[in-house]
Amino acid sequence: MTYRELTIEGRNAVIEAFRSGRTIDRLYLLENCQDGPVMTIRREAKKHDTPVRFVPRERLDQMSETGRHQGVIALAAAYEYARVEDLLEAARAKGEPPFLILLDNIEDPHNLGAIIRTANLAGAHGVIIPKDRAAGLTATVARTSAGALNYTPVAKVTNLARTVEDLKKEGIWFVCADMGGTLMYDLDLRGPIGLVIGNEGEGVGRLVREKCDLVAAIPMKGQIDSLNASVAAGILSYEILRQRMGAGRSGG
Amino acid sequence: MTYRELTIEGRNAVIEAFRSGRTIDRLYLLENCQDGPVMTIRREAKKHDTPVRFVPRERLDQMSETGRHQGVIALAAAYEYARVEDLLEAARAKGEPPFLILLDNIEDPHNLGAIIRTANLAGAHGVIIPKDRAAGLTATVARTSAGALNYTPVAKVTNLARTVEDLKKEGIWFVCADMGGTLMYDLDLRGPIGLVIGNEGEGVGRLVREKCDLVAAIPMKGQIDSLNASVAAGILSYEILRQRMGAGRSGG
Repeated sequence: MTYRELTIEGRNAVIEAFRSGRTIDRLYLLENCQDGPVMTIRREAKKHDTPVRFVPRERLDQMSETGRHQGVIALAAAYEYARVEDLLEAARAKGEPPFLILLDNIEDPHNLGAIIRTANLAGAHGVIIPKDRAAGLTATVARTSAGALNYTPVAKVTNLARTVEDLKKEGIWFVCADMGGTLMYDLDLRGPIGLVIGNEGEGVGRLVREKCDLVAAIPMKGQIDSLNASVAAGILSYEILRQRMGAGRSGG
Repeated sequence: MTYRELTIEGRNAVIEAFRSGRTIDRLYLLENCQDGPVMTIRREAKKHDTPVRFVPRERLDQMSETGRHQGVIALAAAYEYARVEDLLEAARAKGEPPFLILLDNIEDPHNLGAIIRTANLAGAHGVIIPKDRAAGLTATVARTSAGALNYTPVAKVTNLARTVEDLKKEGIWFVCADMGGTLMYDLDLRGPIGLVIGNEGEGVGRLVREKCDLVAAIPMKGQIDSLNASVAAGILSYEILRQRMGAGRSGG
């Protein structure tokens, strides 16, 4: 995942960028300009805690790439999606068996951000999301990931089931989370692995689930029927890490 | 934790209830009434997906407890706090060593709700929160807990450090989460235990931390420095459950 600054110029483009949830790192406004669209932009900036600088026209002309800034230039964070190959390469570079996290229809950006954060700390080599019905890498995802988006690559694929199939040919085993599965402590999760997490309502979709080699169950001792998706991803990711570390076998 | 219906009557009281985040289960409005305050209440109801019934005046008069309903009666969910003693009693009733989760300054209602949900499924006997600087049991907490608030008791205490001290006299050991601690797999977490989770910014406060018997570290393999608080609570709660189940020692 590379992080670079992107210049967005002009009133409508900047308003649109705010409203689409893109992270604006800094906003430059022409000094002494207070008309309607500019006030709208200032309200959006306030709402999103975006730092604002009021600058003279010469400064904006100098920064402008298009020459049509209309008194408004925003610097936006641009997170770029990785390719699945980059994730495997990250594992190879570390000399570790691949550990990937695949998200099937996680639509809540807070959950996506929290899972990228967990992936980073649990030692996963990246996260794979499907193109449709998934949260994109918006400002909320970036913020919730607490910086992990700068380190942990996220790949977007057209068809998650086909990606699973392709990666199985590379020797990766797939485990999905489901109440009806084998207790996670009783599975061997130490090899090259793809952990598939579904959304809270529907779980992992049938097409993807059918391609999984293992179904892991988190023990459930209570009355309700599911954990928050990012909490479930955290518990399963750390069970994989525990087994990889060979920890907790004699102690405890 | 008992769940009961609470009747809220009158325009200002109902608007206030909505705005304070209280869960309104159902709203009764006088039919054919469309003045300003009533339209405000209908907007709030729409925003919160509250079911609305339009009823004749006689019906409202019948339901009213105060006789001053002004054409508006709301039925609200009322979650009642438990006492710490109730949590211990829940453990005794199950014949299990107590497993309590204490939250030091978790202010985000989504985190509080997710942790109550995790507590329910990990077999904890209840959650303890301090009176100050903690999220209350609002509609957001109730919704995020996915029903767990109906089963898992939550106690509110004036002074968390003093509660820890009192519970230590009952034979409970306290473990707090901190990067500087012992790897959680190397600690014995099987006995009567209180797990203390701090907020993401500051961790567990000094006063409470000093009273803890053990400091547990979640392994961190990445570049960023902390997990989401509800994810960290989930990972630690399930490590306690794993040890209690005697699972994962030979397998994996």
